[in-house]
Amino acid sequence: MATLPGYSGAAEEFLQRSRAQIGDVLEVRTDWGTVRGTLVPRYASSRPSHIVLKLPSGYNVGLDLERLRGARVVSKGEKPGFSAPPPPKSRKGLPRVLVLGTGGTIASRVDYRTGAVHPAVSAGDLHSLIPEISEIASITPEILFNVFSENIRPSHWSKLALRVKKAVAEGFAGVVITHGTDTLGYTAAALGFALSGVPIPVLLVGAQRSSDRPSSDSALNLVAAVSVAATSEFTGVYVAMHLDDSDERVAIHRATRVRKNHTSRRDAFASIGVPLAAVWTRSGLEQVLQGLPPRGQKGRFVPRTRFEEAVVLLKFYPSMPPSMVTSVAASKTRGLILEGTGLGHVNSEVVSAVRGLVRKGVFVGMASQCVNGRVNLNVYDTGRDLTRAGVVPLEDMLAETALVKAMWALGNAKSPAEASGWMTENLEGEITSRSLD
Amino acid sequence: MATLPGYSGAAEEFLQRSRAQIGDVLEVRTDWGTVRGTLVPRYASSRPSHIVLKLPSGYNVGLDLERLRGARVVSKGEKPGFSAPPPPKSRKGLPRVLVLGTGGTIASRVDYRTGAVHPAVSAGDLHSLIPEISEIASITPEILFNVFSENIRPSHWSKLALRVKKAVAEGFAGVVITHGTDTLGYTAAALGFALSGVPIPVLLVGAQRSSDRPSSDSALNLVAAVSVAATSEFTGVYVAMHLDDSDERVAIHRATRVRKNHTSRRDAFASIGVPLAAVWTRSGLEQVLQGLPPRGQKGRFVPRTRFEEAVVLLKFYPSMPPSMVTSVAASKTRGLILEGTGLGHVNSEVVSAVRGLVRKGVFVGMASQCVNGRVNLNVYDTGRDLTRAGVVPLEDMLAETALVKAMWALGNAKSPAEASGWMTENLEGEITSRSLD
Repeated sequence: MATLPGYSGAAEEFLQRSRAQIGDVLEVRTDWGTVRGTLVPRYASSRPSHIVLKLPSGYNVGLDLERLRGARVVSKGEKPGFSAPPPPKSRKGLPRVLVLGTGGTIASRVDYRTGAVHPAVSAGDLHSLIPEISEIASITPEILFNVFSENIRPSHWSKLALRVKKAVAEGFAGVVITHGTDTLGYTAAALGFALSGVPIPVLLVGAQRSSDRPSSDSALNLVAAVSVAATSEFTGVYVAMHLDDSDERVAIHRATRVRKNHTSRRDAFASIGVPLAAVWTRSGLEQVLQGLPPRGQKGRFVPRTRFEEAVVLLKFYPSMPPSMVTSVAASKTRGLILEGTGLGHVNSEVVSAVRGLVRKGVFVGMASQCVNGRVNLNVYDTGRDLTRAGVVPLEDMLAETALVKAMWALGNAKSPAEASGWMTENLEGEITSRSLD
Repeated sequence: MATLPGYSGAAEEFLQRSRAQIGDVLEVRTDWGTVRGTLVPRYASSRPSHIVLKLPSGYNVGLDLERLRGARVVSKGEKPGFSAPPPPKSRKGLPRVLVLGTGGTIASRVDYRTGAVHPAVSAGDLHSLIPEISEIASITPEILFNVFSENIRPSHWSKLALRVKKAVAEGFAGVVITHGTDTLGYTAAALGFALSGVPIPVLLVGAQRSSDRPSSDSALNLVAAVSVAATSEFTGVYVAMHLDDSDERVAIHRATRVRKNHTSRRDAFASIGVPLAAVWTRSGLEQVLQGLPPRGQKGRFVPRTRFEEAVVLLKFYPSMPPSMVTSVAASKTRGLILEGTGLGHVNSEVVSAVRGLVRKGVFVGMASQCVNGRVNLNVYDTGRDLTRAGVVPLEDMLAETALVKAMWALGNAKSPAEASGWMTENLEGEITSRSLD
């Protein structure tokens, strides 16, 4: 039993008949052909009648028992690390990459059904799940914390930023942060601002589907992230996620312009209004954006790692009551990001409420719920009323990035005026120059 | 002066030299060629050095004075209607279309700079601005109200629905509603639910750029909307807006699946997760979706036109305080739509707060801030906790549509249970069947 974790019932019996164990290379005959791959553990599966093989490509495939005719063990593998296997021997001269675990679907074996969380970021675990990353870099895995990404908050961002700062001092070639995809974009933006000028690449990476699912994207995304962290010629904070439905290409997104645009697709993440920083393939990086900061630049790296949690995001909707804004004012809130309609509008009652908020010293910024395009408060009366009320138009900044940036600016600036100034300045690619779109 | 409304300075002088008046057909020589079109008034322009011609295609073009060499009047036109010109004579036998004005950029001449609003929906005005619509249908224009669309609220939706109900009784072939684009999607969804089973086509239409701007989209969108309202073989509520950057094709969107996805582009509106209902071109409708309700169906049309305004939309973000949910509970709010992350998640403190809200009898529904994809509360612990707390997963319904539907359901259902049942039922295409995406 213990040798086949995650398998039960018919699937377990099928594997026992073949004397297969986790880590063995199997040849499986199916209705439609023969598949060869490494048997991997299964967790939290919604399909108990599947077995999961890791293909030579590093990608997992789930095979339905009903269509299987038999299996044979081609070679005995090493049992992967449920009891802390020894880390693989590093090849000499490989770049050192720090892999930070924060929780989430990727690189962890979480049984979400029982709530039991099994972080899988020991070097041995990573090696057994995704052997090829040990050939790319010398991995130092570390679990920084382990929470569902919807529970991540600004204090986690600070902790991550401080750990990356230390990693720079420790001489790592790059850092990979595994993170749940739900709030991956928010954390990426936070680190983009906090780690401005970071002299190594920092890659956030997630998986939309856990590694025991037939269509998991965790292996490819992680291989790409480690590869970029180890060898890219550029530095800065990026997100590595599937580019499309193929298992060939991983998009490298700028941290402040990336958004989760789909609940479940593997290519859910998109760069909004800007080109990708690069596209990763197994044969190297393609379409690398010009002007990304290069490695080896001199100058002191002084991250600003504080965040002010008392910033609120409100999405406007028809008949939104002004009390939603005034109740914000009643608390000790220091900032409000409004997601207005269109070019950045709210109804006239909310305009009045916002005026009161600004008078109390609260920073109020305007983004748009359209997701794409640029806020402009100069076109219509409502926009001009908002400007007169002291609302700051945030150009084409994503609303999510605007929230995170306000938390960061209010947490680190010496004065409200300085924070407000930072908000309209392009610091990390979050604001693009005006185009005639 | 009065003959050249909207023109001043050099543009006015240029036109006076040519003895041109509004409504005249001009031939204008430019650096790059000769343009022939009808001189139209200008309003609220941000480019005082342009003159605007309406081309034979019905589309407006703005010409920069600096590139103009001269102009001559080819034929004297009728001065369009600033002083209530007589409506054009209707051709006999044309379908009767009711055009309702609600405000917004299209079909109104609003000087947003001074705040003076000049509704341009007398039949004469419409004719002079867009002559060809008089050839498509016999137009009955009516100003129902005149507000910026960010100020539109549920009471306006009820008023619109009741007016359409009356139009059906009056025998109109179709109804066109001109509307500001900011909240056009919300109003469309509201009418989709309120007018379920409407036996004629109802087309909402807007303009991203006012008709005095070189790139205005108002003419083409309005022509398309009137054309569909007059002649389409299907019924129901739709949105007509530019399909792409060309001036050839107008997308006809289902009312409950359309979203403004860009602040300024003419093709800002998109159907999310579903195909378009149809594509309009000057040579007819293309790609008409199968299964749309046909004209001429028997059965009584009983619109449900009430809306409960006390429904709140909250977009979740990292560290969102539970007080934002409890303060909702303190008021007389009857419904809450949460825009969760990913598959529909919020942090654990918010889960607890929501539990309290449900116990007080508030309907709480979950949509996703990803915009695309489907909520699923069965994958992760947080989702299951939300289900246990009584939160209703709203499948792939747009968050904006979910808000509007909750307002409508709570306004019309006989009991909270009935309202809750309606929320998970596909009534107007707002929920699509589950796909393995």
